[in-house]
Amino acid sequence: MLMDGLELRSRIEADGLLEITLETVEIPAPGPRDLLIRVQAAPINPSDLGLLFGAADMATMRAAGTPERPILRAQVPDARIESMAGRWGLSMPVGIEGAGAVIDAGAEVAHLIGRTVATAGGGMYAEYRVLPADACLVLPEGTDAVDGASSFVNPMTALGMVETMRREGHSALVHTAAASNLGQMLVKLCQADGVPLVNIVRKPEQEELLRSLGAEYICDSSSINFRDKLTEALVATGATIAFDAIGGGRLASDILHCMEVAIGRRQTGAYSRYGSDVRKQVYMYGMLDTSPVTINRSFGFGWSVGGWLLTPFLKAIGAEATQALRQRVADNLTTIFASTYAGRLSLQEALQPDHVAVYGRRSTGEKFLIDPSKG
Amino acid sequence: MLMDGLELRSRIEADGLLEITLETVEIPAPGPRDLLIRVQAAPINPSDLGLLFGAADMATMRAAGTPERPILRAQVPDARIESMAGRWGLSMPVGIEGAGAVIDAGAEVAHLIGRTVATAGGGMYAEYRVLPADACLVLPEGTDAVDGASSFVNPMTALGMVETMRREGHSALVHTAAASNLGQMLVKLCQADGVPLVNIVRKPEQEELLRSLGAEYICDSSSINFRDKLTEALVATGATIAFDAIGGGRLASDILHCMEVAIGRRQTGAYSRYGSDVRKQVYMYGMLDTSPVTINRSFGFGWSVGGWLLTPFLKAIGAEATQALRQRVADNLTTIFASTYAGRLSLQEALQPDHVAVYGRRSTGEKFLIDPSKG
Repeated sequence: MLMDGLELRSRIEADGLLEITLETVEIPAPGPRDLLIRVQAAPINPSDLGLLFGAADMATMRAAGTPERPILRAQVPDARIESMAGRWGLSMPVGIEGAGAVIDAGAEVAHLIGRTVATAGGGMYAEYRVLPADACLVLPEGTDAVDGASSFVNPMTALGMVETMRREGHSALVHTAAASNLGQMLVKLCQADGVPLVNIVRKPEQEELLRSLGAEYICDSSSINFRDKLTEALVATGATIAFDAIGGGRLASDILHCMEVAIGRRQTGAYSRYGSDVRKQVYMYGMLDTSPVTINRSFGFGWSVGGWLLTPFLKAIGAEATQALRQRVADNLTTIFASTYAGRLSLQEALQPDHVAVYGRRSTGEKFLIDPSKG
Repeated sequence: MLMDGLELRSRIEADGLLEITLETVEIPAPGPRDLLIRVQAAPINPSDLGLLFGAADMATMRAAGTPERPILRAQVPDARIESMAGRWGLSMPVGIEGAGAVIDAGAEVAHLIGRTVATAGGGMYAEYRVLPADACLVLPEGTDAVDGASSFVNPMTALGMVETMRREGHSALVHTAAASNLGQMLVKLCQADGVPLVNIVRKPEQEELLRSLGAEYICDSSSINFRDKLTEALVATGATIAFDAIGGGRLASDILHCMEVAIGRRQTGAYSRYGSDVRKQVYMYGMLDTSPVTINRSFGFGWSVGGWLLTPFLKAIGAEATQALRQRVADNLTTIFASTYAGRLSLQEALQPDHVAVYGRRSTGEKFLIDPSKG
């Protein structure tokens, strides 16, 4: 028996038109080691928004289609059309990760029918997905798909940050947009691992949220004495590596500057016009602010600013180390790596402009789930 | 017998006053493995200017003192006084490297009396220096001190760039301010080593200079089609690492952008919203432009911009690898690593405002020597 299912697709044409649709796709029969998953929960991560909307200006969005088969259209500004050339005309599935029930399986993995699994197999904004069992994490009996939905991107990113910190010889971390779901995870992870963490937030109420989780060092970049407070926290923790989700403006430059001042206060030594020898690193893993990065070089030559992505990191550490991190996630899914969500949308709701306006604004800490089995 | 000698000193007070003077210092008797050197040639490198003038605004300079003992004063702008706090009140010797005649030596190295040596022992803007023989490179018999004066900073930096390129897995180089003495060396070194080199210059006449040395890829950043030409050169060479002496403005960002476009043209692959997987690196080893660095992130996440300095690099590669590089310099001092100079100044002349106005403007390719034995 061949099945059909709905799958969300995003396409950008060469004239800059973005069209998001629900397509009927044929679901293949699972191979001997494949699982057929009925998707029940897939988060909308910032990285998913990047693929979903591309460079489109969502202020131009308009709805079309029918209630069952809505269509969402928007326009990419002329200046950014060229940057989308790699995906012109391609109908792209979306949804990096998610969880759901195994409703059929190949002969070699038939014992998994009825279990709930999580995966980062991609294309998860769909009613059904067929994926190799090896690409899935079998969740403990009785786990809700919602609890497993975000078991890859955020948990592995948080673990990747701490692992990168250790491998590059640092002993404390700075994190920006720190009240995000990921930031909350990182607070709990650093507590568990005894890693001093400096949290940079953008609003006073976010400071309270992190304080309630037990975070010790919190600096509000909107406060007038931000740089003084950041420097104090850097003196106290000795952090010389930062993971930055903002990526635009002068925040990275400020962090490097305050690190250099803090290093000067922590150590005494001969004057060097080249600044301290201590290597100061800012990794940008997001782009919440798309304005240019401005760097005022007031911190010597021992600095680096660069991009950081989970996939190349995991490739670099290898399969065995990656598996160890995945196991840690599975063991702590409802504690350290628990996520909270602001709402749960059907595939159809995810294409409605009023919902897009909410989940598309990338507010820190307001993450939504898509439940393709809903409605 | 104790000797006296003149030594150039630079001091910045807490009120921002810069004072450059010639002090009489007592020359110690050489220890068993020390050499007493009569300095005959010490280059004024951009890195020397940093220590010599600090953050002072040289438009404010004024002369004082006597012809034999001139004094040069200038003022550090208020906004930059704090950045000089590490050297307030310190009387600092200047001159990273130089060469001269051995006029006395300790018992164990007495056979070197009469030879010419080069060194990066520091404080070389002085009539005499006592340094361990191990810190000196004994030049071939008959070598002029002028030929050995710049045997450390530029040659080792050029070698360090090629070595860094190889160690970090790249196969071609980009260099900015490429018509500098260092840039000319790098052209010859890359020819000798078969390394494709993209030279970025700021003026048309610099293009001609490099062309006369046999440079193949030269891009003039003042030309209207600079980015197209740079991209073509990057497609041809496959360069994914750049060493940048400018360090301000949008040049580094442009280089990364053109690298990403070139990578796209050289390879075909699936669209990724994260950009190519290829790591693109810009190392800033200078700061000819002190304005902020502006980075427009249009090249995915596989990028890094950071500081690069010779000393930490040599520390990282270790004594044996460093010695191999030094030997290569000694073997090629009048060929690959030959320097040319625009003039030769006495210590007194180096403190005269009309001379400072010339050597202080950091024009590409116009390097001066100080000869403390002159006049």
